[in-house]
Order: sequence, then structure tokens, then C-alpha cells
Amino acid sequence: MNKGILVVVSGFSGAGKGTVMKELMRRYDNYALSVSVTTRAPRPGEEDGREYFFRTKEEFEQLVREDALIEYAGYVDNYYGTPRSYVEQKLEEGKDVILEIEIQGAMKVKEKNPETLLVFVTPPTVEELKRRLEGRGTEKADVIASRLSRAAEEAEGMDAYDYILINDDLDECVERMHALIQSEHFRMSRNTEFINRIKEESKAFNK
Amino acid sequence: MNKGILVVVSGFSGAGKGTVMKELMRRYDNYALSVSVTTRAPRPGEEDGREYFFRTKEEFEQLVREDALIEYAGYVDNYYGTPRSYVEQKLEEGKDVILEIEIQGAMKVKEKNPETLLVFVTPPTVEELKRRLEGRGTEKADVIASRLSRAAEEAEGMDAYDYILINDDLDECVERMHALIQSEHFRMSRNTEFINRIKEESKAFNK
Repeated sequence: MNKGILVVVSGFSGAGKGTVMKELMRRYDNYALSVSVTTRAPRPGEEDGREYFFRTKEEFEQLVREDALIEYAGYVDNYYGTPRSYVEQKLEEGKDVILEIEIQGAMKVKEKNPETLLVFVTPPTVEELKRRLEGRGTEKADVIASRLSRAAEEAEGMDAYDYILINDDLDECVERMHALIQSEHFRMSRNTEFINRIKEESKAFNK
Repeated sequence: MNKGILVVVSGFSGAGKGTVMKELMRRYDNYALSVSVTTRAPRPGEEDGREYFFRTKEEFEQLVREDALIEYAGYVDNYYGTPRSYVEQKLEEGKDVILEIEIQGAMKVKEKNPETLLVFVTPPTVEELKRRLEGRGTEKADVIASRLSRAAEEAEGMDAYDYILINDDLDECVERMHALIQSEHFRMSRNTEFINRIKEESKAFNK
């Protein structure tokens, strides 16, 4: 059995990544979704180990010292990180492991694991992005402004990603995500073992 | 509408590329299959403009002088080439254009068009390849030997390809080919226009 692929999915806040991921997991059993560790307080309805592993700042720093996180980053006074053991175990089992993380963390993961597949999810237009960020109706003006400003920053980093998916239609976006991750298994650079065997065996023809 | 993608499909003789291509064209209308020009004589049942455009050596050389071929190569006393006009017209129409050509021609196409997608099709094992090459039962020993020796050469060039598809099950191979070509449309480097617009528009947030 082949090892799974490490996939990082990032995208603008409001692009609907979470919904795409949830639906992808529901439809296919090829995937494992990594749960992040955070020091921020749980929001109503959030459960430890489901949305996040909720830890104190001290516990988080202990994880960092133990090198138990693939990547971690600070964002608005809190830490967020990706536990190493779950990811490595699932990859060994042949699952494609999806990390839904920020661009900052994505770059760190890619640096340490160059074979990581990076996918960026975006709404069809910036106007639509703005509507989605503002449209929840529950956020204060400064929160919206900070999200928009972050979106502008994130847009600058998009080029580092391998693929861009436009989340206009949920069903279409999920199927495209599935197709592109599964296609990645056939990338030449991920099949060196098979290729070397073919090369080795076919040499016999020239003897 | 987006421009189509230029796809080169190569693979061992006997890997079943032709059947995969035929079935891909039958199932989906996203594609246009380029018909090559050759100076070799038509085999029984072959039709000018369907399997190949059959031309004399003089006519072929005229096409070369007119720069009417994307690539051409000599193989066993004959020329083979890819007509430029058909390919360019279909790409403009948004079709993904497939060239089923040898590794030598593939490298030339890639050199001139770096955005070309290269796919290599192979049987599951070299033993299976050997069985298929020998199994037709109609070929002389020296023809088989020459095919096997060519397969060994081709194996050495496999690394230059982007993807490898194992043709074990026709249906599966066709669907994988379709998924990987369609996924290629979402590659970041093929969406610079959209990305630049997003970047440009989102800058407004930081004003």
C-alpha cells in the first residue's frame, strides 16, 4: 500500500473551506482531517478533540519543546499548531491527511515536507468574499476590517500554492478537490519505487 | 473561456495508450486528439486523416520548412510530426489537445511549450509489457526484440513526465486520465489572470 499524501488547504476566511472539507470527509474514506491544537478558548458548541484540542499556553509550549507539532503559529494572541503523531500515523496507514491551516503554517509545513500538496480555496470574486465576510451580520466593523486586511495579505501568498479551487458550487468544489488529490498519487515523483523497478527490469531487454 | 491544455501522452508500445485515448474521446467532449503526419505507408484499414495524414517525404520536408509542425522526429526510416494549426486552433477553442507521441517528440514539445502536461502510460509490470509485446503473435522475433529494446530506452526517459498511469483496468485508467487532466486546469500557474485580479481587488481592503 502506498503512503498517503499530506495536503494543506488554506484560503480566505469566508471561502467556505470548512464546509468543503466536511463534505469531502463525508463522501470519501480516503482522507483523515487533522485536528489542530489551540490555546484559544472553546466557543459555544465546540468540543475538545473535534474542532480543536484546547490546551493552556503552558501545555502548548510543552508540545513545542517536545517537537510534537509539525508547525505552529501565533495569531491574534493565541497559538495554533498541528500534532505530529496523528498526521504521521494516518499517512502510514495510506490516508491522505488534510491540514486546514493558515498560509504562515502552510509555508512551514512545505519547507519541512517538500512533497506537501498545497491547495488554496477562494470565493469566485473579491466582492463575493467581502459579502461573505460582512454578511454574517454578527461581527463588529473592526473584526470585518481585520479579516479583509488579512485577506489582502493572504492573496499575496497565493502563488506559493499548487492549486486554486473556486468555491462557487459546493458539490463541484468537493469533487474537484477529490480529483486533484487523487490525481496527485500518479505524479511521477511520488512513484519512484515503481519507476525504478520498471527501469531495472527493462534493462534485461538490452542484454 | 479558458484556453485548453496541451497534453502529451507517451508510453511503452503495448501499453494500450491508443485504446485509452479512444475511450477518453468517446466519454468526454473536453478533448481533441491530434492526428500526426507521417511518411510511412498506410497499413491495411488505415485512412488518411484518421490514423495519420499520409504524406510523401517531399511533402513532409515542405511542412518542416514552413514551420507547420510543432515537433517531428524520424523513427525507423520514416518521419512523424504534429501539425501546428490544428493544435493551436483547438487550444483556442478551449479543448484540451492530446498528442500521442514518442518520448523524443514529447521532449521537443515540452521545451517549446513548458506548460505542456506530460503523461506516461505503462502496463503494471515489465513481465506484462513483455507478454503484450510478444503476445500479438504476428510479429517476428527481431521486431519484438527491437520493441523491447526501445522500451528499455523509453523507461530511462520516464522521469521527465509529470504523471504515470498504470493501464491495468481500462475504465479506471480512462477515468484517472480524465481526472488528472481536468485537475490541471486548477493549477495555480494556469490561473494567473484570476489570481492577479484577486490580488489587485483585495488591495483595496488595505487602503
